[in-house]
This record gives sequence, C-alpha cells and structure tokens, in this order.
Amino acid sequence: MSPKNVAVIGSGNWGSCIARICGHNVVNQENFNSEVRMWVFEEMVDGKKLTEIINTQHENVKYLPGIQLPTNVVANPDLVAVGEWADILVFVLPHQFLPRTCNTLKGHLKPGAYGVSLIKGVHVEEGKGMSLLSDLIRESLGIDCALLMGANLAPEVAQETYCEATIGSRDPAKALTTDDEVVVELCGALKNVVATGAGFCDGLGYGDNTKAAVIRLGLMEMIHFIKTFYKDRGVRDETFFESCGMADLVTTCYGGRNRKLAEAFVRTGKPITQLEEEMLNGQKLQGPLTAAEVYTMLNERGLVKRFPLMSAVHLICVGQVAPNKFIDELREHPEHM
Amino acid sequence: MSPKNVAVIGSGNWGSCIARICGHNVVNQENFNSEVRMWVFEEMVDGKKLTEIINTQHENVKYLPGIQLPTNVVANPDLVAVGEWADILVFVLPHQFLPRTCNTLKGHLKPGAYGVSLIKGVHVEEGKGMSLLSDLIRESLGIDCALLMGANLAPEVAQETYCEATIGSRDPAKALTTDDEVVVELCGALKNVVATGAGFCDGLGYGDNTKAAVIRLGLMEMIHFIKTFYKDRGVRDETFFESCGMADLVTTCYGGRNRKLAEAFVRTGKPITQLEEEMLNGQKLQGPLTAAEVYTMLNERGLVKRFPLMSAVHLICVGQVAPNKFIDELREHPEHM
Repeated sequence: MSPKNVAVIGSGNWGSCIARICGHNVVNQENFNSEVRMWVFEEMVDGKKLTEIINTQHENVKYLPGIQLPTNVVANPDLVAVGEWADILVFVLPHQFLPRTCNTLKGHLKPGAYGVSLIKGVHVEEGKGMSLLSDLIRESLGIDCALLMGANLAPEVAQETYCEATIGSRDPAKALTTDDEVVVELCGALKNVVATGAGFCDGLGYGDNTKAAVIRLGLMEMIHFIKTFYKDRGVRDETFFESCGMADLVTTCYGGRNRKLAEAFVRTGKPITQLEEEMLNGQKLQGPLTAAEVYTMLNERGLVKRFPLMSAVHLICVGQVAPNKFIDELREHPEHM
Repeated sequence: MSPKNVAVIGSGNWGSCIARICGHNVVNQENFNSEVRMWVFEEMVDGKKLTEIINTQHENVKYLPGIQLPTNVVANPDLVAVGEWADILVFVLPHQFLPRTCNTLKGHLKPGAYGVSLIKGVHVEEGKGMSLLSDLIRESLGIDCALLMGANLAPEVAQETYCEATIGSRDPAKALTTDDEVVVELCGALKNVVATGAGFCDGLGYGDNTKAAVIRLGLMEMIHFIKTFYKDRGVRDETFFESCGMADLVTTCYGGRNRKLAEAFVRTGKPITQLEEEMLNGQKLQGPLTAAEVYTMLNERGLVKRFPLMSAVHLICVGQVAPNKFIDELREHPEHM
C-alpha cells in the first residue's frame, strides 16, 4: 500500500488545530506521507499572504495565534491542487462554505479518496429540506466519509490537554467508534443552537441551575429533533452519552464561542455580525445560522411549538423576540407536560 | 380531609431553602396547615440559640444568610415533637446524620405520615452492603417515601431563579414524576463524587474539554454502578436525561460546593476537614464521604478497576494517590476499551 496523503480542508482555529495534530501524527508512520497539506482560503494579513505567513512562520497568526504548527504542515491556497493530491480529506470549515467547496472539488479527487468531516452544522435549502453535511460530501463527491466529533474546544486541544472524541463510521473495524453517524453529526450541529441559548442565560444573569435546565431541555430537543427527522437511520439513545453528545454539549455551553458571543449579544445589544467582527476576528458563528436552518425545518413541518428552545434562540437572534423573554419561552415546555 | 402538617427535617442551606419554599407554598392552601415546622439541630451562634434567631429574625444567619424566611416557618430543636406533629416529613440533612435521626423518630410518627427525601447520599455499612436512604427511611420508620432531586444549587433556588427538579415516586398520579426511584436517588448521591473529581480538574488547571470528559466518564460510571447494584429495581436509561440525572451532575460539576472545595484541596494542599471549616462555615461535604462509601462497595466486590474515576476520587481524598495523578488514572478507562 502506498503512503496516504492527508489534506486538511479549512484553516480556521479548529482547522489549524487539526492540521497541527495531523502533522504530528503522520511523522514516522509508514502508511502516511510525512507532509500534510492544508487548504487555506487566501487572505492578506498585515500586507502578506496568509499562506506565506503560515509556511514561513509556521503559525496561523490570524486564527490560531500563539500555537506553533509543525513544519510538515504546508498551506496551499489552491483547493483543486490540494484535492487532486489527497487520499484523505479532512473537512474542517464553517458549514455554510461546504457546498461551494464541494462544487470546486468535484471531479478533481483521486480514485479511492475518502473524507473525514469535523464540521458541525446541517445543510438546509428552503423547500428542499435538510441534509447531513457528511451526506452532502458523500453524494456530491462520490466518496465515503467518516466523522469526528466530541467535547473539543479548539484552543484547549491545541494545548494538548486531555480530551475525548467520538468517531462515527460505518466501518466496524475502527476502535472507539460508533456506526450511529447521524447522531454523531447532528449533535455537533445542534449543540451550537443550545449553546447560544446557554449564552443568553448567562447574559441575563441566571446561575447554574437555570443553565442546567436549558442544557437539559436543549438535549431533549436535540434528541427529539434527530428522531423526528432521521428516524429511519439507526438512531440510538446511547450515542447521546458519547463525547459527541452530552459532553460536547456541556463543553460548548460553558466554554464555547457561541455561548460567549450570545452572552455579549444580550449584555451589549449589539448585532451578532458586529460581535463576530469584534470578538471572533472575522470568524463566523455557527449557532445562530444553524438555529435559522433548524427553524426553517420546524416551521415547514408545523413543529415550532414542540421545540420552543431552539425556536426561541432563532427568534431572539433575528430580533423577533426580546432576549429577556428567553426563559419565559421555556416555562410551558412540552418536556414538562 | 384534615389539613396536613408539613415538617422539614434539617436546616442547613438546602434545608432552610426548602423550608422557605414550603412556607410560601402552604399559605392559603386548604389541604395544608399554614405553619411549617423546621427541625433545627440546636447550636449557639454569637451567644444565642439558632432556633431563637430563626424565630425572631426569620433568617438562618448561619447556613442561609441574607435570605428571609417566611414568618410561618417555625424552628424547633425537639426532633420527637416535630415528628409527632407532622403528616409530611421532608428530609433535608447531610446523609451521615440520617440513621440516628430515624432512630430518634422511630415510634413517634403519626399513622399515615409519609416522607419526602431530598438527601443526596447512600448508606453503607462495611460488610453489610449499601442501602438507599429512602429505603432506610421506609424500613426504619415504616412509612412511604418519595424523592425530589434535580439541578438545584441551594443559593440559586433561594433566589427563585428558574430551575427544574425530578420527583421520584411510586404513586403514578403525580405529574412530572418518574417511578424510577433508584436512579433519581442514586444520581443525587453519586454526582457529588464526580463533582469532586471535576473540582480536582479545575484545581489542576485543566479546561472545559477535560472537565467534560470527566463529567461524561463520571456519568458512565454512575450508570454502570446503579445497574450493577440495583439491576432488579427497574432502572431505566431515560431517567438519566431527567433533571436528577445529567442536569444535576452538570450543575454540581460547575457551581457546587464539592467542586469548589475539591479545587481548593488541590490548589492549597490543605486537608478537606480544614477546608470545610474555612469555606463551608461548618457544613459537611458529601462528595468525599460518598466516595469512601462507594469505594467500600467496589472494593468488597472486586470492582475498583471498573470504576477508576470514582475510585481515584476516594484515593485522592484520603491521600493515597496524589491529586496530579487524577487524569492519568482515567487514561485506560474501560469506557475507552
């Protein structure tokens, strides 16, 4: 078997963090090429190309500052060139950019290439329903796709502290995995919506009891949502106890950026787009976007009242409900009936 | 039906908090006597009896300072007198005091009286095995006993912020309850052990990913422990998704006093008993005690290696393992095999 080429598609803080891990892991492994290529959406930082900065300073100064990347991680702005080279494509980019990324890659992959998705989101087209991002990768590129999700805040992973992850894959040979891909992927997406609600809670000055209730009701809605929309795909309750499930939810609701920005949204009254600029250095928040996508699905099916938490998160993000009504929206929650 | 007399057995911060709620709730309810009696273990505070302070200032200045109690809550130091008066006994005291409290009450209860336990712990006698506290109440007093558990940090409940709770009861007529009493009660006990571990994590300077892994592995051990020791009593997975389960665990691992004191234990190196004096104003921590009780059970059954997290918490609390080895103890966790 010839050594496999690993490419990371994406270079935000999580993408850079994963490229760093891949770079360390391929070294001295005979099954892998010792170079890892990272596709970087080219932009100028202080008058220099970001790819050049990464390839000379070995640091993503914009999205993962202060963390050294191994020298065998090579940034490349040419998506097609990276795709043609890769045997394994690790997708780590904001979910709204996936459709156009797949469109560009289509027809430019090696035979036998496969994907691993670390993207947390869903794809919704109004009137056409919802797709899993891994299904979008599988179908548009004609490749298989595994998943890695878990309680993994990027800055802490970059610092190499102990953490867990869940691998979702149909290949039963892999250890520590589950074949319940649907729950693995959708928990990753939906937890950002719940974390946005947890951030509202913090912004409103509530304590840990209220936040625990929000996290729990959010988890119940996540479970019910997944069972409603994907009941035929082998959803299992025990997957919610994996790292991709309640653990990732808890991490995100305490330490994640959706939480942090949602708290600031309530406290400052500034629009989310402005806070993204001020607090995320141009990175995009996934929670409000996923909430909008979820709301579209719920609204089309007449299910808004069954999911008051996720619905309220969306309506608050778009200014249709005042943030201080958030807890009131939960008082008649169907989980309490 | 004559109005029921409600007595609260215990007067720590959670007991005082519950007495306050009971006091508010009985007012203008024809089924209830408008007076609530609270049994207080008498002690002197600044030269005055605590019961007198509570009955004149309407504040438990020692254990719930700054929170006004309704004037219909009456403190009483005579346990037998309170027991003889009560139709409903709400047990809210540190679990190590329950056996002697029941011994005192035995033979002094009204016919038809029943108990509600809010105590989080288990009762273990070396060589004799483990009992649920609610079973201890049922058997030693010959009364029925329901349970109330949930994500309920006392200071926040006292401030009346939104929170949830789970009621465990065999009486199916009650709304919002589960008959899975075993899980309701044991989650309340075991979460204090996990929260002690979460506090070690904080003391060691780990972030949210590691803490989420500790919380998740702790929950898996809780589930496995309950299924191992109480498999014949109708344990159901879905109860772990109730407020008494993962929500209470999360609250406690972030905002609870076990977490706080365990963090200080690691940072300062002071013994737990000294920290209880300094930080809890004489109240007792339940986590290390429950960890010792759990360890006794595991050791007798040869199960220590199957429960590395709960075992490590005990061994660290008693000084047999260094706190900085805590995460190392989890690296070969059976949940990862």
